[in-house]
Amino acid sequence: MKTLTVDLGERSYPIHIGHGILPLLPEKLAECGIGSPTPLLVITDSAVAPHYLKPVEELLRGAGYPVTTSVIPSGEASKSLEMLDELVKVALEAGLDRKSVIIALGGGVVGDLAGFVAASYMRGIRFVQVPTTILAHDSSVGGKVAVNHKLAKNIIGAFHQPEMVFYALEMLRTLPPREVRSGLAEVAKHGLIWDAAFVEWCESNADKLLALDPEALEYALYTGCSVKAQVVGQDERENGLRAILNLGHTIGHALEAVSRYELLHGEAISIGMVGSAKLAVRFGRDPVIYETTKRLLRKLELPVAVPSHIDTSEVMRTMMYDKKFKDGRTVFVLPEAIGRVEIVRDVPVAWVEEVVEELKREA
Amino acid sequence: MKTLTVDLGERSYPIHIGHGILPLLPEKLAECGIGSPTPLLVITDSAVAPHYLKPVEELLRGAGYPVTTSVIPSGEASKSLEMLDELVKVALEAGLDRKSVIIALGGGVVGDLAGFVAASYMRGIRFVQVPTTILAHDSSVGGKVAVNHKLAKNIIGAFHQPEMVFYALEMLRTLPPREVRSGLAEVAKHGLIWDAAFVEWCESNADKLLALDPEALEYALYTGCSVKAQVVGQDERENGLRAILNLGHTIGHALEAVSRYELLHGEAISIGMVGSAKLAVRFGRDPVIYETTKRLLRKLELPVAVPSHIDTSEVMRTMMYDKKFKDGRTVFVLPEAIGRVEIVRDVPVAWVEEVVEELKREA
Repeated sequence: MKTLTVDLGERSYPIHIGHGILPLLPEKLAECGIGSPTPLLVITDSAVAPHYLKPVEELLRGAGYPVTTSVIPSGEASKSLEMLDELVKVALEAGLDRKSVIIALGGGVVGDLAGFVAASYMRGIRFVQVPTTILAHDSSVGGKVAVNHKLAKNIIGAFHQPEMVFYALEMLRTLPPREVRSGLAEVAKHGLIWDAAFVEWCESNADKLLALDPEALEYALYTGCSVKAQVVGQDERENGLRAILNLGHTIGHALEAVSRYELLHGEAISIGMVGSAKLAVRFGRDPVIYETTKRLLRKLELPVAVPSHIDTSEVMRTMMYDKKFKDGRTVFVLPEAIGRVEIVRDVPVAWVEEVVEELKREA
Repeated sequence: MKTLTVDLGERSYPIHIGHGILPLLPEKLAECGIGSPTPLLVITDSAVAPHYLKPVEELLRGAGYPVTTSVIPSGEASKSLEMLDELVKVALEAGLDRKSVIIALGGGVVGDLAGFVAASYMRGIRFVQVPTTILAHDSSVGGKVAVNHKLAKNIIGAFHQPEMVFYALEMLRTLPPREVRSGLAEVAKHGLIWDAAFVEWCESNADKLLALDPEALEYALYTGCSVKAQVVGQDERENGLRAILNLGHTIGHALEAVSRYELLHGEAISIGMVGSAKLAVRFGRDPVIYETTKRLLRKLELPVAVPSHIDTSEVMRTMMYDKKFKDGRTVFVLPEAIGRVEIVRDVPVAWVEEVVEELKREA
């Protein structure tokens, strides 16, 4: 087991990562001040519950914790105010008070929703992230929690740091292959924004990652979490540096929404990262950035092209809610080189539109 | 104009209180870092809008601010997740970004709701409280914002401090007399928990307060805000001292809910404070506490008895969601003397029930 720390003063917390570590969960909870018999509410989803809810529940009960569980429907649609309302009802009926703790057992949707329940129930109670997907190595670190609005993703939320991230990689075994690939897009992103050597490593080890080779996976997720932890440690509330984590996300979020979430998050940001590389090249950056980005993502069996049935003007309209468009220009995170990005404040919207259109012909 | 500071380190903010100060609003906004042309969303309710929305809007536009306005239905029912959803839509359609500011123009309902919109929109934007009721001298200070759940009041919320509280007392002139009385209950509370001399002053000046005498009102609200600011400054997130602000609120919240909000907040806590005084006497405190509390509240023309049609067992059930009841005991804020309270951790639930029942016969 490896342990990292997200360094945020009195809100600092550990990230434990390892294969076969699930039995250590009660011990690690106690280490971060959540000793038995603290009442726990375990929130998970219908995809994760059949595999892991019972073992986790028994483990926690066995250690003396009173446990309530709630299973939400799997999928982005659960990140809603309606589901917040429902989970608050569950929490109230279970008698959760301000000292109780919520355990988010699942991927990004569960983490974001359960985290926002924790952020707002009784004006904030503690929570712990127990990620069960590769994608969640990103979303579980950094305290960004939220639900969606019909008009925009993640628009209702909070910065609410977990007490601990507990990443038992044996739970990744049951992930569908498409979810594995989608998750690796955020791993790739952490390399592309921060660490050229890691990009090279990912390309060389893509097959192992896709096959969920334990050692490769542990290294990749440790490295990814460590990039995230460093960025978040320097800019908790996204006033500056943290924006670099949005590489590929402006186009990606719009594609997710316009595809009605048929594109998974990682798939959408994969395409978005190719788009960012293309924009960078238009600004005069080395075309090798674009080639390397694309080669890496294809090695990870991720899409690099916008599906042809998607309407470019709808993508552009959707982006307007996400980003500030002013005088025909907007802000983007663009690669300067592999492993390094910059915030570019005067990207012509016309270029973005052309790039989205070009991305349809990408192969 | 008098100015107080709520001292919370980098989250400190001023409270400006005075008669006829509304024209100074743009200047005071600029002083706290909200210069024109910061986009503003003014949220108010259907009771306040006819009197003050237009003047406030014109004032702000005149000073160069782009202003969007939204009028919610007046009343507690607006503190809902549905209204949050609606206001987020308004904010998105108005193009509000993370640098925009929400102005809560109204009483406690507007402040709590608009404050929670500000706390959660884009994971938190700035907001300013412009209270228009006496009650809001309490709720606008301290950063507690929330909406209600069907099962419990204020259960979904945040601690989100405003940038400023701007209290133009000339706006109180249009308050219905019942709202004036209700608001004075929180003024009385601030005396009862903190300042025996102020309790005496309130009793002697009750007629002036009920008549909205400008000088008496300014003194009372300045003193009330100052008690609140001192308590909040010592315990921002209600880990200890801040609980004393809940004098009368355990019984009060339950009465509000069971009466389906026919009892106004101040009316309910007035009855609750009489209940707390009765409990204190059962614990051996001087009966003069009960007599003084009751005399003060009656001078302020507030109810001191539980309406006879209210079902005591429903009140008790409702209280369960609000407070921890364990082994037949619960926690209460009880007066030790006039101007001083204590947290009592072993109040027999049976005593609470007897007191609620006795309160029906109070005269």
